[in-house]
Amino acid sequence: MDLALTCEHATMSLGERFQAVRALSEELAHGLSAEDQCIQSMPDASPTKWHLAHTSWFFERVILQALLEDYAPFDARYDYLFNSYYEGLGPRHPRPQRGLLSRPSSEEVLAYRRHVDHSVLGLMERGEPEVDRLVILGLHHEQQHQELILTDIKHAFFVNPLHPAFASPQPHGVHEEPAEPRFIDYPGGIVPIGAPDAGFSFDNEQPQHAVLLRPFRLAASPVTCAEYLAFMDDGGYRRAEFWLSDGWALAQREDWRAPLYWEQQGDDWKIFTLRGERPLDPSEPVAHVSLFEAAAFAAWAGKRLPTEFEWEAAVTPQPVVGNFLEERHYHPRAGGHAGPLAQAYGDVWEWTRSSYDPYPGYRPFDGALAEYNGKFMASQIVLRGGSCATPESHIRATYRNFFPPAARWQFSGFRLAEDQ
Amino acid sequence: MDLALTCEHATMSLGERFQAVRALSEELAHGLSAEDQCIQSMPDASPTKWHLAHTSWFFERVILQALLEDYAPFDARYDYLFNSYYEGLGPRHPRPQRGLLSRPSSEEVLAYRRHVDHSVLGLMERGEPEVDRLVILGLHHEQQHQELILTDIKHAFFVNPLHPAFASPQPHGVHEEPAEPRFIDYPGGIVPIGAPDAGFSFDNEQPQHAVLLRPFRLAASPVTCAEYLAFMDDGGYRRAEFWLSDGWALAQREDWRAPLYWEQQGDDWKIFTLRGERPLDPSEPVAHVSLFEAAAFAAWAGKRLPTEFEWEAAVTPQPVVGNFLEERHYHPRAGGHAGPLAQAYGDVWEWTRSSYDPYPGYRPFDGALAEYNGKFMASQIVLRGGSCATPESHIRATYRNFFPPAARWQFSGFRLAEDQ
Amino acid sequence: MDLALTCEHATMSLGERFQAVRALSEELAHGLSAEDQCIQSMPDASPTKWHLAHTSWFFERVILQALLEDYAPFDARYDYLFNSYYEGLGPRHPRPQRGLLSRPSSEEVLAYRRHVDHSVLGLMERGEPEVDRLVILGLHHEQQHQELILTDIKHAFFVNPLHPAFASPQPHGVHEEPAEPRFIDYPGGIVPIGAPDAGFSFDNEQPQHAVLLRPFRLAASPVTCAEYLAFMDDGGYRRAEFWLSDGWALAQREDWRAPLYWEQQGDDWKIFTLRGERPLDPSEPVAHVSLFEAAAFAAWAGKRLPTEFEWEAAVTPQPVVGNFLEERHYHPRAGGHAGPLAQAYGDVWEWTRSSYDPYPGYRPFDGALAEYNGKFMASQIVLRGGSCATPESHIRATYRNFFPPAARWQFSGFRLAEDQ
Amino acid sequence: MDLALTCEHATMSLGERFQAVRALSEELAHGLSAEDQCIQSMPDASPTKWHLAHTSWFFERVILQALLEDYAPFDARYDYLFNSYYEGLGPRHPRPQRGLLSRPSSEEVLAYRRHVDHSVLGLMERGEPEVDRLVILGLHHEQQHQELILTDIKHAFFVNPLHPAFASPQPHGVHEEPAEPRFIDYPGGIVPIGAPDAGFSFDNEQPQHAVLLRPFRLAASPVTCAEYLAFMDDGGYRRAEFWLSDGWALAQREDWRAPLYWEQQGDDWKIFTLRGERPLDPSEPVAHVSLFEAAAFAAWAGKRLPTEFEWEAAVTPQPVVGNFLEERHYHPRAGGHAGPLAQAYGDVWEWTRSSYDPYPGYRPFDGALAEYNGKFMASQIVLRGGSCATPESHIRATYRNFFPPAARWQFSGFRLAEDQ
Repeated sequence: MDLALTCEHATMSLGERFQAVRALSEELAHGLSAEDQCIQSMPDASPTKWHLAHTSWFFERVILQALLEDYAPFDARYDYLFNSYYEGLGPRHPRPQRGLLSRPSSEEVLAYRRHVDHSVLGLMERGEPEVDRLVILGLHHEQQHQELILTDIKHAFFVNPLHPAFASPQPHGVHEEPAEPRFIDYPGGIVPIGAPDAGFSFDNEQPQHAVLLRPFRLAASPVTCAEYLAFMDDGGYRRAEFWLSDGWALAQREDWRAPLYWEQQGDDWKIFTLRGERPLDPSEPVAHVSLFEAAAFAAWAGKRLPTEFEWEAAVTPQPVVGNFLEERHYHPRAGGHAGPLAQAYGDVWEWTRSSYDPYPGYRPFDGALAEYNGKFMASQIVLRGGSCATPESHIRATYRNFFPPAARWQFSGFRLAEDQ
Repeated sequence: MDLALTCEHATMSLGERFQAVRALSEELAHGLSAEDQCIQSMPDASPTKWHLAHTSWFFERVILQALLEDYAPFDARYDYLFNSYYEGLGPRHPRPQRGLLSRPSSEEVLAYRRHVDHSVLGLMERGEPEVDRLVILGLHHEQQHQELILTDIKHAFFVNPLHPAFASPQPHGVHEEPAEPRFIDYPGGIVPIGAPDAGFSFDNEQPQHAVLLRPFRLAASPVTCAEYLAFMDDGGYRRAEFWLSDGWALAQREDWRAPLYWEQQGDDWKIFTLRGERPLDPSEPVAHVSLFEAAAFAAWAGKRLPTEFEWEAAVTPQPVVGNFLEERHYHPRAGGHAGPLAQAYGDVWEWTRSSYDPYPGYRPFDGALAEYNGKFMASQIVLRGGSCATPESHIRATYRNFFPPAARWQFSGFRLAEDQ
Repeated sequence: MDLALTCEHATMSLGERFQAVRALSEELAHGLSAEDQCIQSMPDASPTKWHLAHTSWFFERVILQALLEDYAPFDARYDYLFNSYYEGLGPRHPRPQRGLLSRPSSEEVLAYRRHVDHSVLGLMERGEPEVDRLVILGLHHEQQHQELILTDIKHAFFVNPLHPAFASPQPHGVHEEPAEPRFIDYPGGIVPIGAPDAGFSFDNEQPQHAVLLRPFRLAASPVTCAEYLAFMDDGGYRRAEFWLSDGWALAQREDWRAPLYWEQQGDDWKIFTLRGERPLDPSEPVAHVSLFEAAAFAAWAGKRLPTEFEWEAAVTPQPVVGNFLEERHYHPRAGGHAGPLAQAYGDVWEWTRSSYDPYPGYRPFDGALAEYNGKFMASQIVLRGGSCATPESHIRATYRNFFPPAARWQFSGFRLAEDQ
Repeated sequence: MDLALTCEHATMSLGERFQAVRALSEELAHGLSAEDQCIQSMPDASPTKWHLAHTSWFFERVILQALLEDYAPFDARYDYLFNSYYEGLGPRHPRPQRGLLSRPSSEEVLAYRRHVDHSVLGLMERGEPEVDRLVILGLHHEQQHQELILTDIKHAFFVNPLHPAFASPQPHGVHEEPAEPRFIDYPGGIVPIGAPDAGFSFDNEQPQHAVLLRPFRLAASPVTCAEYLAFMDDGGYRRAEFWLSDGWALAQREDWRAPLYWEQQGDDWKIFTLRGERPLDPSEPVAHVSLFEAAAFAAWAGKRLPTEFEWEAAVTPQPVVGNFLEERHYHPRAGGHAGPLAQAYGDVWEWTRSSYDPYPGYRPFDGALAEYNGKFMASQIVLRGGSCATPESHIRATYRNFFPPAARWQFSGFRLAEDQ
């Protein structure tokens, strides 16, 4: 296996990469108070402090306890507190109660991280390939939680009527109205789908296999807020004919009228961002929509969403360039232009019209890690491409993110497709 | 479009077929009291009387009101009561409250059926292809509800502590232990999937398109109760490692320990059937399991479930023969032997490992009927092959049934698959 | 103990009374179809058939099985089906699932009643005082269920969009606007409260004891619909300042804007009655309000509700005369005039401002019957005086009915009080 | 009105008292981290920080904004965040979401307190009786929240698997088994109930009025843990015959087997206290039981609970002496001996068998404060006497505390009564 975390990490040693990834997690928490790091605004989200501890627990439990015969855990009780969902690793604290853990304190969690860092770096000095393999997995795991730190605190700050900002506001220029959507033709045919054996990938991207596609077309850019406003203005949230049945029921029950984080003030729309509330920029990609809203928009527009296979076939040739977490912008940008499919990487995760099913020949990771991905393969939808909260070194064309079709708190947008 | 309802109906005129299908629905209700026909044991199920009325409403609303300029509805208020889920056809009675409709009475519903029958037959005399096309659709719709009449009353009778029987008990012979499961090789390759243009099919089976399959193997028979008992005896319901995450949570919450309708009495298992409670027959196909249980069994067995494409590719060459509703057996049979893949048709619907996603190029039916199938394409799983409650003339190799992965009240079983 | 069931039954033998009460229950069910008798529109309500069976079970379980050594139950399984809430008498069918019992059929339940009637009448021939005592209790129990048969079917018919009527419509004259409410002075002082030893009474009315009351005033009539409309027109349902906290939360959550069974059509109010829907009569007592609404009205009016002790002290001298079930009117009447406190008996149960607490010296009935009343003495409110659905021979001044403060499906109204 | 806050405050000026009460609240929070002060473990409880802010809001909104024409609020948005339940004072933050308010920070809340303190003290210099009257009310309000700070953090620390302690452990001696319960006779008769006009009291204690009581007997001490263990050992939690219906259903649903905060370890019981977990002391009063458990115990013991009138009549002659918050013991003590009715004050609130109904002649406070007590007079039960978490200067014989019968997180115990 290639040890590359890709991109910026390419010239670093694994030890340097370990320290860089671990440091970035703490950087994200740095501007947050101990109280901010403690709260949990909904069962789907977790406190910042919990993310910081859980990612350390992952290294401790999966690597240190497995490979270091005399490893002394920092606190034996943390095994219960910071196991997320691994049935095979024992009982765990109920997910909806993560926000009740005022103890351990943020400071204790940072001390826990130091303890784990020290032990992992010590273990890595042995130079064992199995250690390296698991450390790389642990770093990708931590990068997934870096994204969640951002999306979860965004939700927590939004439900606070004071609407605190995660980062300082930035000047936000006026953009031109986005141009008419443009579609690009792709020939389809028999294409390779999934990750090759070389390089890191998750089990759910494997094995690489051939898929037969009909010719298709993809929109050159993700759907923008301006386009989405047109859907809203045309009664998009009131016209059942565009909606999947579950989505319509949910939208009625929760009185959806716009994407999450949009707030109407008089005739104008404000949008809540990690840098505080500001006017909506019509030219930026729409984010924080569910699959249900994405599919309804597509139906309204007379188009459809791409399958994950179409997306991957089209994007694979493009370089991994985009508005990622490393930019510290924390929000999709208007008018990004990289590759023929603009903004395919970064900015917003793109809902596909593919349910999250196993690939032919799929084999879960071994042991407890079998639970990492495989057990979620029901009632979820695949998203592709990463977002402004995804570390650049974490994403690739074959990456399969997945969320239930109702989820809106991720930076989730979409791109249209159609048959040729 | 070929007007065939296939099989037994092949030699009938469409008018004769109409009368035969309509009569069968009423036959199913015949042995039930007015009270039996009125109750609804859970929101997913509907009263017999409601099924009899709703199928008539479908003819009335989709055909008679659309095509007969001077059609006088039997009762204008029925449009609200018996619309199932068509947002485009106006507001409707809440689904969980269908069992509160003591009025209209069973007799009034039968009179409603007579009124609709008379009007449809009159309209059919015009000989318009559009009428015929819609009548055939209405008959397939009614056949779907025939199956639901059986599965819904089975559930209703089960929750009654008196455990009434829908039909009289039949002598039930002792069967041999089923033989070791045998697997059949299939070559995969590029295969046609979906319904051809000719003949009736639902929109969700269309368009026919090519799918590339890897070589695979399918079990020659569905999993039997004996095999399933081995899974249970080996802790199948207590070992999280076999289960999808949502399934495990549900099984814990509802304390699942066996398929639905199984009841342990001392060391023995009884099974509740439409012909009353009787000892479990180990050699019959297991039924009334969820996708979660099917997938857990497959993981325990070191196999997997087939995709819907593998199933269709393998079964398409086989004739539509099996234990269907027309046999009035109302329960899966042990040891059926038809085709190389025994019991592929009839007996039990077979869970696949395919989410219910649209086919490439999918177009919903026009108008209100667009809601027939398309709006349910999220969070559901495809089942194939029909069951002992499915009319034989209703099923075909390309037929895609779909239910949420938690559903157990259908005659749902499964067949194992593996890679070559 | 005096065996009198009071009033009309005074000249009957107990056997005749038994037959009369049992016959009245069946008379109430007579106009209902088997389907009508089977449905349960909410967990608080029960199917007619269940009431008919349960009251028979009560005789069977409390008298026949206890006192007849060789009694053969009609069906041993009914003990599970028709036990209401007696933990001491074994497990029972879940209350919210009473409407799923299509079996036993209405006819079987009638046969069950015949079996029990025959056995009880046979046992009564022994002339044992204990038998008579329990039969009288059983008859009062059955009379309570006669009222529930009416209130429960009223609710069930209301939730059916067809709004069936329990009885035929009657001509409904126009009444004059009710006069300004008039208050009557009462001196208070030390008054006897509760039932004397002689005559039948429930344990919750006992023992008779002295209560010290301050002077008070009671409205001469229950609050009318006209008065209640004035409250509504003055924003009664929108002004939190009048409401108890739980009531306000409930009214918001369920969007209450009027009493139960009122429906606004344009500028007019319709009211659903057991004789079908008709225009609201402003001069009839308001019914189907919760304690929360009654208390809010009183606060709006600058008055209060009476305590149960004030009510009893004032009403005790009056004869038991009023619009009862025996009139078969099934609805409160406008302008009744009996006694200084008009309509104190019959028409509508009157909410008091007294929680349902035990009287000093309270002792529950012996044995299983200890559960009859005592275990409900928390979170309930006392109502007094009976309603148009109460048998006349069932009510008395000391009678304590009780329901949670949110209940609205009984014929519950109220009368204002104030301090002198 | 007498300005006395009673007892220790008797020699202080009102300004000194204001500063003492305000300081005590902050002392309680002093040992808690910012994270501890932020969490909310259930909707009934509130974060420490919220209590500190809300009590300040009360002074700001009820006094400063009402009486200071040019008062500048510390932060206008706090009016929304820290209004508890006053509909008359505008919309407010949803109660179950108080634990999501990481902002304002603990430090900002302390600054808010300083701002309010300064303003109130300035206003008090005017020497206006209305100011003094409202300040005294505000201090009693704050004292109520001091008790809640303790009971709410106790619950929050209990649900944390780490079981943090609020205060340091104290040596806990072994006590003798408590003596056999002893009963004291009281004559009953016409007794004054409720608060006199002089001195501070809440509206719900008013007006003083006469109540006629039968002779009764009260246990000389509250029920101890040893006595409660005997109830448990005799199947108290498994025998429905002792329980109120709602209580039994709740105990089954939540699988109650002991008071809240008791944990069985092998054969021993541990108890979680504000000073951490330690062995159960059989001789201390049982606490953290619901009314349902108290009433079940009484039924098991063949006794009953006293009415609030019996309690008040018996306790009024006794001095207000007991184990209060000022002792900083934070837990009931074993074997307290003050007055003939030992531990009538302090240690544990005592459930009575009286629902929380208005007194005859009850008038709520004026204006927005009408919501202080009156709107909760339904479905609640009266408790008397204060607890180890109640400030001594806050309690009196006429004080009516109230909670729903299911509540267990307060220091709630009980004392038996019986008829003579």
